[in-house]
Amino acid sequence: MMVHPRDRAGLEILPFAECLRLLETVPVGRVGFVSDGEVVILPVNHLADGQTVVFRSNSGSKLSTVGSKTLVGFEVDDYDKPTHSGWSVVVSGFTEVVEDEGEIRRLEHLGLESWGGAGADASWIRIRPTSISGRRTSGAAFAD
Amino acid sequence: MMVHPRDRAGLEILPFAECLRLLETVPVGRVGFVSDGEVVILPVNHLADGQTVVFRSNSGSKLSTVGSKTLVGFEVDDYDKPTHSGWSVVVSGFTEVVEDEGEIRRLEHLGLESWGGAGADASWIRIRPTSISGRRTSGAAFAD
Repeated sequence: MMVHPRDRAGLEILPFAECLRLLETVPVGRVGFVSDGEVVILPVNHLADGQTVVFRSNSGSKLSTVGSKTLVGFEVDDYDKPTHSGWSVVVSGFTEVVEDEGEIRRLEHLGLESWGGAGADASWIRIRPTSISGRRTSGAAFAD
Repeated sequence: MMVHPRDRAGLEILPFAECLRLLETVPVGRVGFVSDGEVVILPVNHLADGQTVVFRSNSGSKLSTVGSKTLVGFEVDDYDKPTHSGWSVVVSGFTEVVEDEGEIRRLEHLGLESWGGAGADASWIRIRPTSISGRRTSGAAFAD
């Protein structure tokens, strides 16, 4: 496995292309946003779509309040408890509720599985990143 | 396994005591906070300490900027990809940098393992929750 430069804490700094690749390797990510003055983190099933992240939010859910043009955080990670190893990719970006019908149809064919049960009226939300960064613990023993 | 009431999305609403218990079952959680106008989510190794959450932050790290009295989010989850099942516990609360030396010594004996490598000058940060809530997908097939 390639070894990358490390940050001050000794964590490997993952290259951009590797961050994009890792975004697609896990079925669950977490969206962070401010709601009623609180920082809320909620897990979602997501897909990487080019250099953006897409997920669904049910009408009336707390997540649906983010709407468009909201600055949010997004995080995916994976770890292996026995070896104390893992990686994380952190995204910061603006949301965009997908409204174009052709685009919605395209997204619906990408195969997103919503374990929490996305209702028929669930919206597609896209995060357009302003930054993507990733770290891996030095003990990492992952194949991916 | 006990089945709990469900929310509008069909997710089981976990009781408070179950949320507290689940907080301790995973070695990695994610802290969400606002930094320079961005919502940042970072993974940490954490411990549950009573009804609070504690973790370490290295001096000079982005996480160390949260300091005390900052409203943050915290999230833990676990999922099983084959069965599309999982749970999450979401905490909202205020941070508190632990400064009492006796308390620091006590925390250092709780056995927290910092995979990312907590430096000798790493601070202990405690999250005092203002809310704790948890959900489980209906397909959940976990033993825990």
